Amino acid sequence: MTAIRTLKLVVAYDGTNYVGWQRQASGTSVQELLERAFAPFGDDPAAAPGVAGAGRTDAGVHAQGQVASVNVTFDVPAPAVQRALNIRLPPDVRVIDVADAPPGFHARFHATGKAYRYRIATAPVLSPFERWFVWHSPVPRDVEAMRNAATRLVGRHDFASFQARGSWTSSTVRTVTRLEILERPGEIVIEIEADGFLRHMVRALAGTLAEVGAGGRRAASLSDVLHAHDRRAAGPTAPAAGLTLVGVRY
Amino acid sequence: MTAIRTLKLVVAYDGTNYVGWQRQASGTSVQELLERAFAPFGDDPAAAPGVAGAGRTDAGVHAQGQVASVNVTFDVPAPAVQRALNIRLPPDVRVIDVADAPPGFHARFHATGKAYRYRIATAPVLSPFERWFVWHSPVPRDVEAMRNAATRLVGRHDFASFQARGSWTSSTVRTVTRLEILERPGEIVIEIEADGFLRHMVRALAGTLAEVGAGGRRAASLSDVLHAHDRRAAGPTAPAAGLTLVGVRY
Repeated sequence: MTAIRTLKLVVAYDGTNYVGWQRQASGTSVQELLERAFAPFGDDPAAAPGVAGAGRTDAGVHAQGQVASVNVTFDVPAPAVQRALNIRLPPDVRVIDVADAPPGFHARFHATGKAYRYRIATAPVLSPFERWFVWHSPVPRDVEAMRNAATRLVGRHDFASFQARGSWTSSTVRTVTRLEILERPGEIVIEIEADGFLRHMVRALAGTLAEVGAGGRRAASLSDVLHAHDRRAAGPTAPAAGLTLVGVRY
Repeated sequence: MTAIRTLKLVVAYDGTNYVGWQRQASGTSVQELLERAFAPFGDDPAAAPGVAGAGRTDAGVHAQGQVASVNVTFDVPAPAVQRALNIRLPPDVRVIDVADAPPGFHARFHATGKAYRYRIATAPVLSPFERWFVWHSPVPRDVEAMRNAATRLVGRHDFASFQARGSWTSSTVRTVTRLEILERPGEIVIEIEADGFLRHMVRALAGTLAEVGAGGRRAASLSDVLHAHDRRAAGPTAPAAGLTLVGVRY
């Protein structure tokens, strides 16, 4: 009998050229690239049902610390696995760590929290170096109003109003443990941590907070938005490019 | 008689997809893109011999603050010129400022100094977000030895040993006013300012300092390299991607 071994991968990617984390018929996904990079290890397909990611990032969304798990039977040491994967992957997808995990470890089911960053470039002219990594929205924004709105979203709430329409999940209740609005030269950065996120939740929160900042919505109205349980009550979904999955907690 | 007006442009670009600043038959240059972006103003070609850049950056080299001058006869206000140019330019080339300059101002001839930055990524795995903007060279380096070597290059010297072979200039003497080696997490940054630079000079300096850092050359030998007046005495030309023209002084 072949021993099954579980590997935990930390993966960074520039999502610009991909359909997102998850395999899709419409184009190349990060998951597919990783699974193809594992293939030459000649592993038993039955023991390797695929590479599971902690979060299903959308097309154009980036990751600094996506975590993935995979069951394998080969016995190549973890650092050599990392080197082999990086040789087989394109330079916009990098495996930044590989480690043996406890048997049965699953990147998605065992995640207890995730951190995302959303960047809004506010300078009139978009830097050519940041163009794939920010939402360029050069509108004057009241950062204090955005912070005021953010405080109303921290904690355990039903975030149904911030979930992409057509989604289905058993519960839309999530606990936001941290939501900070940082101001840097030429940009506003939204940093958010929660026990989990609904589909498009960070982008809907970013779009709504951006509206508050631009004066199109009052900070106090955020409590009403939460209570509405209706996607139409919140603001628009901010563009994918501004979003990065920073890390996953276990 | 039509009045001639001189405009000063500050231009940022991601040089990855270009043959460099200067027009070349082999591909698209930043200069060509800017000249094409000026064409719809319908200016008198005789009064507009072209857009002159302060520094001729090589293929793949980037700029945060390239400066260019152009003579025009149209009377569109500078901020409107900037907006029109940015609409006509691709997003990897951005005009970050346009201003009226004193008549006869020339971006290259009147420059009194330039600042460049060279980035060496030293982490084992190259960040997907930095891959076009650094030289990935994950070798342990002695930054103190690099600093020691750098001090020998500051001042007025004949930099012939750091000039691309086959170049011709009336003088290879330049004055380096600042040369600092900064250490950041996962990278070493070389910041250099001089009254002017020879062809490939910063990249040759970076390649030579990198050799010192890796122990392949003694810091004290830099004085001998300068005195050799021979390109073969210095180290290799570091890759273009790591180099950025930070700004130009007048």
